[in-house]
Amino acid sequence: MVRLTRSFPAILLLLSAYGFLVSSASAQFEPKQEVKYSPQLIEDLTSLRDAALSSNYAYLLAAHLTENIGARPGGSPQAEYAVQYVADELRKLGLEVKLEEVRVPRWTRGVESAELVQYPGQAPGTSQKIVLTALSGSSATPADGITAEVLVVNSFDQLKSFGADKVKGHIVLFDVLFDKAKAAAGYAGEAYGEAVQYRARGAKAAAELGAAAVLVRSVGGADFRIPHTGFSFQGGIPAAAVTAEDATLVSHLAAQGNVRLHLTLTSHLGPEVVSHNVVADLKGSQHPEQIVVVSGHLDSWDLGQGAIDDAAGVAVAMEAAHLVQQLQLHPKRTLRVIAWMDEENGGRGHDAYERAHHAELANHVGAIESDLGAGHPLGFNCKINPAAAPILQPMLSVLNSTGATVLKQSSHSPGSDIEPLVAAGVPGFAPLQDVRTYFNYHHTPADTLDKIVPRELQENAAAMAVLGYTLANLPDPLPR
Amino acid sequence: MVRLTRSFPAILLLLSAYGFLVSSASAQFEPKQEVKYSPQLIEDLTSLRDAALSSNYAYLLAAHLTENIGARPGGSPQAEYAVQYVADELRKLGLEVKLEEVRVPRWTRGVESAELVQYPGQAPGTSQKIVLTALSGSSATPADGITAEVLVVNSFDQLKSFGADKVKGHIVLFDVLFDKAKAAAGYAGEAYGEAVQYRARGAKAAAELGAAAVLVRSVGGADFRIPHTGFSFQGGIPAAAVTAEDATLVSHLAAQGNVRLHLTLTSHLGPEVVSHNVVADLKGSQHPEQIVVVSGHLDSWDLGQGAIDDAAGVAVAMEAAHLVQQLQLHPKRTLRVIAWMDEENGGRGHDAYERAHHAELANHVGAIESDLGAGHPLGFNCKINPAAAPILQPMLSVLNSTGATVLKQSSHSPGSDIEPLVAAGVPGFAPLQDVRTYFNYHHTPADTLDKIVPRELQENAAAMAVLGYTLANLPDPLPR
Repeated sequence: MVRLTRSFPAILLLLSAYGFLVSSASAQFEPKQEVKYSPQLIEDLTSLRDAALSSNYAYLLAAHLTENIGARPGGSPQAEYAVQYVADELRKLGLEVKLEEVRVPRWTRGVESAELVQYPGQAPGTSQKIVLTALSGSSATPADGITAEVLVVNSFDQLKSFGADKVKGHIVLFDVLFDKAKAAAGYAGEAYGEAVQYRARGAKAAAELGAAAVLVRSVGGADFRIPHTGFSFQGGIPAAAVTAEDATLVSHLAAQGNVRLHLTLTSHLGPEVVSHNVVADLKGSQHPEQIVVVSGHLDSWDLGQGAIDDAAGVAVAMEAAHLVQQLQLHPKRTLRVIAWMDEENGGRGHDAYERAHHAELANHVGAIESDLGAGHPLGFNCKINPAAAPILQPMLSVLNSTGATVLKQSSHSPGSDIEPLVAAGVPGFAPLQDVRTYFNYHHTPADTLDKIVPRELQENAAAMAVLGYTLANLPDPLPR
Repeated sequence: MVRLTRSFPAILLLLSAYGFLVSSASAQFEPKQEVKYSPQLIEDLTSLRDAALSSNYAYLLAAHLTENIGARPGGSPQAEYAVQYVADELRKLGLEVKLEEVRVPRWTRGVESAELVQYPGQAPGTSQKIVLTALSGSSATPADGITAEVLVVNSFDQLKSFGADKVKGHIVLFDVLFDKAKAAAGYAGEAYGEAVQYRARGAKAAAELGAAAVLVRSVGGADFRIPHTGFSFQGGIPAAAVTAEDATLVSHLAAQGNVRLHLTLTSHLGPEVVSHNVVADLKGSQHPEQIVVVSGHLDSWDLGQGAIDDAAGVAVAMEAAHLVQQLQLHPKRTLRVIAWMDEENGGRGHDAYERAHHAELANHVGAIESDLGAGHPLGFNCKINPAAAPILQPMLSVLNSTGATVLKQSSHSPGSDIEPLVAAGVPGFAPLQDVRTYFNYHHTPADTLDKIVPRELQENAAAMAVLGYTLANLPDPLPR
C-alpha cells in the first residue's frame, strides 16, 4: 500500500485507522440486537475457518509470487507474468477468469548513488557514501550526477520559513523522525501517516522553492540502514529516500557546517504499457449478479519481493476461493477474487475497475482487501453502515478462536483499491492486522517471504474466507 | 573484531567465552580471601566511576570518529586521519604519544553485484538481484563477472561429501543458519563462533574442490537484508557474503531445480601501506616501567561507520586516561592507551606491537581491550591466574552500582589485539558487554553511531577506567 493519488489528505485519516489497538469505545459498534445465522451457515463458516488454519495453499502461492517470480513493479515483465500465473491458478480452481486491461507506467530505478563530498572534520581526499533509493516520482539527474549544498529541514513549515532565497539550488533533506514509540504501542499506522507525507509531498514542496533535489528520511522504524521507497508526487526534481542513519548523519554534520552532496539518480518513467487486473468469479448459486470482492494487490515495489506488500493479500484472497471449492460449498452470491494492478504507483488498477464495472457497483454487496501484511489479524477494519455491525457478530464469533474479534469502524476506506467501491456505498473491510513492525519492512529490500509467518497467514486466510463467505450467504445484503 | 589469522580454531573457543550469561559456576572465581584496598584507592576508583557516568567525552570522540571521519578500513586515508586525530586528542590530555608503524594491506571493495539469471519458475526475460558484499580475502571476478550454477551446502562435511566432481566450476553457497535463539538467550558469541567459521574458511574449502566462487550466508541475526562482511582466508576465488534472505531464496530455488548466478566482484588487495598503532602513555609516578594497557581498535570495516566495532572501544580507553587527568589522579604505574590498527583484516597492529615491545612484555601488568561493542557491561571477561581474582573483588564492588559485577574466566584471550600479551602471561581483560544484538550490526552497513547508547558507553568507560586504575595502583602487580 498506500494510495496517494486520489485525495492525499484522506490517506492520513485512513492510516490513522490502522492503529490496531482500539482507543475509543465510541468508534466501536455495540451489538444491540441479536442476529442468528442458519445452522448450515455456521457449520460452513466453521469448516472454512478450520480448513484455512490447516491449509498451506496461500503460503505456497505467496512463495511462488515472491521467490520464483520475484519483485513485481507495475509494468514489469514480472508483474505481467504474475498476472498470468494468478489467472492460471484461479482457472485451476474452476473460477471464471478475466484479465481486465490497466494501462500502467513503467518506472525503472536505474543508477542511484550519493556521497558526501564536503563536511566538517572530513578526512582530506575522502568522501562518505550515503545509502538511498529513488522515489517513483523522481526526475533523473544528469548521468554524472549533481553536487549541491544540503539544507536540512524538519517540517514543511520550516521549509517555507526558509523561503526561496535560502532553498534555491540546495538539496533539501526532510529529516522527520518516524515515531517508533507510537508504532510499538500499536499505532504504527498513525506513525506512518505522519511521516509519509514528506515522502509523498516533499519533492513538490522543495521544487516550488527552487531546490535542486530532495531527500527524505526513510519512513519506518528499522535501524538497519535500509531505505524505504514509495510513491512521490512529481516535483520535477530528483527525489530519494535516505536511510534513517544517513539522515541523522547528514543532519549532525550540517549542524556543524557546510555539507555538500553528490547525487546520481537515473530513474526513468517510460510510456504506459498494458497490464491487467485479474478478476475471477466463483458464481453465486442464487444471486450471481450480486458480488462480494476478496482482494489484494499483485504489483509491488522493486526493492524486495513484495511479500507482505502484497503477495500475502493476493494469496489469502485466492485461498478464500480455494477453500470454498475444496469444501464444495456454494455461495449464494458471486465471490469475486481480484488481484489488483498498480496499487503502489498510482492506483490505475482500481480506477480501471471502477470505469469497467460502473454499472455493477450497486450490485457489489461487500469488498475486502488485505494490504497491510500478514500479521496476526485482530478482527476487521471496516467502513459500513453501523446497522450492519450486529449482523456480523455471529461471523466474528466463528473467528473468535483465531483471535480475530474486533470490528473497527473507520471514517475512510479500509483499503486503497476498494476505495472507489466504498465511495459508492459498498461495505468495505480489511483484516485488522498487527502492524507494529509492518512499516519497518514494506517498501524496503527486506520485504521478503521470511517476513510472512505461515500461521499468521493462515489466520488471515481464515478471516478473509469466513467474512467473504458470510457476505455471500447472508439472507440479505448488508445495509449500505 | 575478530582476529582469525593467528590460530583460527582458538577463535571458536574465544568466542564461546563471550556468551555473557554465566553458565557454569566452575568457570567462576570464588573469593576465598578478603582483600582490602586503601581508603584512598577506593575513593579514587569511586570518583572515576562517578565521573565516567557523567562524562560525554567518550561519546563525542566516538561521534567524531564515526560521523566526521567515517569508515576507517585499514590502509585507507580515513584510518590514517583517525590515527592523527586520536594522537592529537591524547596529546591534548597530556599523554606521551607515539605512532608505531604498522604495515597494512589496502583492500578496496570495488564493484559487487549479483543476480540470479536462471531458476525454476522464472519470468521469461527477467532476473533477480541478489544482495551481497565481498569478503576481504576475495579474489576478483573478470570485470564483466562470471556465471555458474549454484551448489548449496549446509556444512563443510556436506561439501566434502559432494567431492570435486560435483563442486568443480560451481558457485558454492554455504547456507548455515545463525542461531538466533542462542543469541537471544545470551550466547551470541557462541552463535557467532559457530557461523563465522564458514565466512572465514569457506573460500578455501570450496576452492580446494575446484569451486568457481563461494558465497556464505551472512553471519548475525538481522532480518533486514543487510550483508555482513569480514575476514576470509584467501582461497584464490571470489568470495562474498549474501544476506540471510538471499541465502534462503537461493536455497529454496535450488531445491526446486537448477539455479545459475551471475557474479561480479572487483575487490582489490593492493600493496602494503604504512599505518600506525597509537600508543600513548600517562607515566606512572612510582613504577613508570610497569604498564597497564587500556585499548580498542581504530580500524573498521568499510560498510558502516565502525561505531560499535570499534570506535566505542577506542573512545572508552581514551576516556579512562581523560578521567584520570581530569580528576588529577596519579597512577603509580603507567597507563598506556592503545588504539590498535588492522584488527579486522589480519591483526598486523598487535603483531607489530609484540615485535616492538617484546623486551617489555614482562613489565606489562595488565591489558584491557574493549571490542564487543558498547552494550551494558556485566563485568569482565578475563584470562588471569585464579589467585588474582580475589584481589579484584573490591574493584568489582566499586562497579557494583553500574551493574558490572561478574569476573568471568576464559580459556583464551578476552580480546584479539591483546592476545600476544595474554600469551606472554599478562593478565588480560575485556568488558563483558551484553552482546545479544551486537552481531546483528557489526561488520554491516548499520554499524553506525546511533547503535551506541550514550549511557551504556558511560558504563563501559566506568568499567575501563576503574579496572585500569586498579591495575595501575594495586600495591603489587596481579600474580601472573
